[in-house]
Amino acid sequence: MITFERRPDDYRHWRLTVEGRVATLTLDVDEEAGLAPGYKLKLNSYDLGVDIEFHDALQRIRFEHPEVATVVLTGGKDRMFCAGANIYMLGASTHGWKVNFCKFTNETRNGMEDSSRYDGLKFVAAVNGACAGGGYEIALACDEILMVDDRSTVVSLPELPLLGVLPGTGGLTRVVDKRKVRRDLADLFCTSADGVRADRAKQWGLIDDAATPNRFSELVRQRAEALAEGSPRPTDAQGIRLGPLERTADEAGLRYGHVEVSLDRSNRRATITVRSPASPSPQSAEEIFAAGDAWWPLAMARELDDAILSLRTNEPALGLWVLKTEGPVENVLSAGRALAANRAHWFVRETIGLLRRTLARFEVSSRSLYAVIGQGSCFAGLLFELALAADRAYMLSLLDDEDAAPVIVLDEVNFGLLPGVDGRSRLETRFFGHPGVLEAARERAGQPMDAEAALRAGLVTIASDELDWDDEIRLAFEERASLSPDALTGLEASLRFPGAETLQTKVFGRLSAWQNWVFNRPNATGERGALKLFGSGAKPHFDWERV
Amino acid sequence: MITFERRPDDYRHWRLTVEGRVATLTLDVDEEAGLAPGYKLKLNSYDLGVDIEFHDALQRIRFEHPEVATVVLTGGKDRMFCAGANIYMLGASTHGWKVNFCKFTNETRNGMEDSSRYDGLKFVAAVNGACAGGGYEIALACDEILMVDDRSTVVSLPELPLLGVLPGTGGLTRVVDKRKVRRDLADLFCTSADGVRADRAKQWGLIDDAATPNRFSELVRQRAEALAEGSPRPTDAQGIRLGPLERTADEAGLRYGHVEVSLDRSNRRATITVRSPASPSPQSAEEIFAAGDAWWPLAMARELDDAILSLRTNEPALGLWVLKTEGPVENVLSAGRALAANRAHWFVRETIGLLRRTLARFEVSSRSLYAVIGQGSCFAGLLFELALAADRAYMLSLLDDEDAAPVIVLDEVNFGLLPGVDGRSRLETRFFGHPGVLEAARERAGQPMDAEAALRAGLVTIASDELDWDDEIRLAFEERASLSPDALTGLEASLRFPGAETLQTKVFGRLSAWQNWVFNRPNATGERGALKLFGSGAKPHFDWERV
Repeated sequence: MITFERRPDDYRHWRLTVEGRVATLTLDVDEEAGLAPGYKLKLNSYDLGVDIEFHDALQRIRFEHPEVATVVLTGGKDRMFCAGANIYMLGASTHGWKVNFCKFTNETRNGMEDSSRYDGLKFVAAVNGACAGGGYEIALACDEILMVDDRSTVVSLPELPLLGVLPGTGGLTRVVDKRKVRRDLADLFCTSADGVRADRAKQWGLIDDAATPNRFSELVRQRAEALAEGSPRPTDAQGIRLGPLERTADEAGLRYGHVEVSLDRSNRRATITVRSPASPSPQSAEEIFAAGDAWWPLAMARELDDAILSLRTNEPALGLWVLKTEGPVENVLSAGRALAANRAHWFVRETIGLLRRTLARFEVSSRSLYAVIGQGSCFAGLLFELALAADRAYMLSLLDDEDAAPVIVLDEVNFGLLPGVDGRSRLETRFFGHPGVLEAARERAGQPMDAEAALRAGLVTIASDELDWDDEIRLAFEERASLSPDALTGLEASLRFPGAETLQTKVFGRLSAWQNWVFNRPNATGERGALKLFGSGAKPHFDWERV
Repeated sequence: MITFERRPDDYRHWRLTVEGRVATLTLDVDEEAGLAPGYKLKLNSYDLGVDIEFHDALQRIRFEHPEVATVVLTGGKDRMFCAGANIYMLGASTHGWKVNFCKFTNETRNGMEDSSRYDGLKFVAAVNGACAGGGYEIALACDEILMVDDRSTVVSLPELPLLGVLPGTGGLTRVVDKRKVRRDLADLFCTSADGVRADRAKQWGLIDDAATPNRFSELVRQRAEALAEGSPRPTDAQGIRLGPLERTADEAGLRYGHVEVSLDRSNRRATITVRSPASPSPQSAEEIFAAGDAWWPLAMARELDDAILSLRTNEPALGLWVLKTEGPVENVLSAGRALAANRAHWFVRETIGLLRRTLARFEVSSRSLYAVIGQGSCFAGLLFELALAADRAYMLSLLDDEDAAPVIVLDEVNFGLLPGVDGRSRLETRFFGHPGVLEAARERAGQPMDAEAALRAGLVTIASDELDWDDEIRLAFEERASLSPDALTGLEASLRFPGAETLQTKVFGRLSAWQNWVFNRPNATGERGALKLFGSGAKPHFDWERV
């Protein structure tokens, strides 16, 4: 069982140092400390374990070091930035492992761009040595790429010529979409194993600037400080310590303080229940700050994040995630009011950021998501985002006992505070092409809606009365669990993102789909495929048919 | 060897009737006339042969029936519109065949939307009976979907529940992106084999209107005539007859009047050479019309279209297409002037439309495209679009003999007359994010540029002098031909479409990628996969892991 919690004292692969507004995160991989046996993490290459520490370090910078406005990413070995994902690890992995690994690493890199865009935490890649494949893709996720010009260091995306696969963490998309490298030059770059030195890299737009070795650290310092200027991150705030998660795990599932995951393996289903806080949220920034990592929106988001990652990695056969909530509606709305009112405070802003990134994980998870809005639930405001992230929402209608009937409530949180990976609020995406319905929903904000009202407003998929409810839900679960897992993955990835695309939806929807296809083809992963044979000295054997 | 030319007299599956402004194209599949042995085309299902006739019929409506402003698509069998692609054909096909089949059918449906958007030819689906899968996807490509309300007819996308695959011709994308069906309702629709009757279909946005059987033809007539109003298609013009293509084919390749394809199987390469017209183009609409299907832009486009389709279907192992041109530059520019000046004339507009759709085929072809701009070439205006469609362009620099040195020329055709599948001119896409470079190119329009000038302007990838030219080209070809065909397909599909996406790029880039992955997975096509076992009575066996 893979776990995703780490503590800085236990990092094996990263060093974090903070100096004023600038943090430096140095990748210095312990080649003996791979997550699984069978490979060495040579040349500063990474596996899931290295990336889990990376994810943890970024999270701690956001919360524990609020004074940091720029993060410099650099390599800790001699003339070596990062060689990308470890190829022997990839070659030995199952299809599912590779795809899940790429998803998590993509999310971490997207998370850097998310923090840069929404929260003013900027990133500089200080490419102080060889930078290949996934290494260059880490750099691509930064706001600026600076490179040492020593006449030997190159940046490269050699996956295609060396391994017969695509760069797996957004490289192709970011080269043309973000860095705006002309597409024929991108084609040259991505089909050559040799890479590009500083002068040409700058000319093509692959990097922003370069300097000779003796001037490099000064260039990095200058750019890092320039990026920090104007950041809304505070200059003199104390951080919030992220304590260990309250978490127990057994055969039945995972239990946290506010989140519970129950596993039903025979029916290939996991139920994720999020509980509302037991009391109303503090409303002032001071009180919220004083609550620290125990503040419900933060504590719940951390638990939910951990639960999603754990399910994706450890329970691939549970294809249906049922999303439930439990507890007093009013306390969720109270938390939403606190989030909206204090969004300018760094701690609240970062909590919103974590909620945003956590909810975004649902949208790119290859699992069917059903929200079940039953008695005692609290799908209100922030927690209604769970229903909006779901592929379907079922809601119980209790005609005979109006007081006990579940309700949903929209609040300010639903109208732009937590955009999805497509850059829009989930309500906007839901009502894509129907601005009048969106407007009508806005007018209902704050009003509890029962199942009939929610159905009329287009906010739930199915409303079912007491007599039918159990059968309705049971049949819906059974039916979903009977369908082809692969076809569902493709379906969900297509239906979840109507309308305009973003870099992130393109990375997950277009690039990852092609990568998954390539990963699954004998030319890459067959016994004589290029990925499989890498390093063996044997030449790959290709079926030359273009498909 | 599959050929793509058809004549209406020989249609086996379609009937075309024209009445005033409205053409009716009736699908009445001859179940015994499948393109390959081994399956019957029951229930008005289609295979590639049915779709080739469809493509031909649309082409003839555009050119031979200019008075037609609306095409009604309907079914010719009792209470049967179309059951989609033939499942037994799909189950028995190779991966490559399925993907290529879906590509061509997608292009034909996209071509309907292309004609509707740019040229005012509108489409109405008259769903007069069962309409499933690819049948409903034909309807989705129409401007309006009308459905008979007889309490039994349904529309459905049953691919996922019945076959474990995705709807393969844009269904998922069009349901949410074009028809703007709410995504949870789309999820219900696409996971149910039962389909949806008229009342609910209208409520969800799956159709535009419905009528009882005795009022249905009147509804169709009304809507077809309403759509025809305001169409720029002429009311009283004579058509242009599309005569048979001049085409010879042998082991060495394909030869047409203006296009030649030479096959180099040992090097896995095809060279497509387009010759400029032997004389300047007529410049008045009358003269152009008098030239008819011999007018070079039309004749060349038809030949190029046929060549692309033939190569894709018959020569899958030729992974590199080298694009060349030959002849006097001035005559290409003359044709471009005629196109631009007379674009309001229906015949010229339709010729531009065919050029637009033909060039768009390059962008979605899973082949590497290298333009080679050598001596005697004429990459000017319209033919420079070939270089812009290519993944790379190599250009010869002849420093010692300026008069013989090849030049490129931009003209009005390059600045918006022929948008690609992403809806922008190829120059805009090339210079995505660099408006200044685009503007500079515009200022150079009309001026011949040699290799150095073209390189400086960002219009070619590599300029090479006489001494290096042969080696440069040879190495470039060899290197490309040595790379993994699958990885190249994924790479090209990612790099060719920077920036904003359109329905078409989403269909090809996102949906097709997922479909290709699903097609390649044992859950669909393994010995116990759902697609393979369909109709056998045996239940599919799924690996339940979600990837």
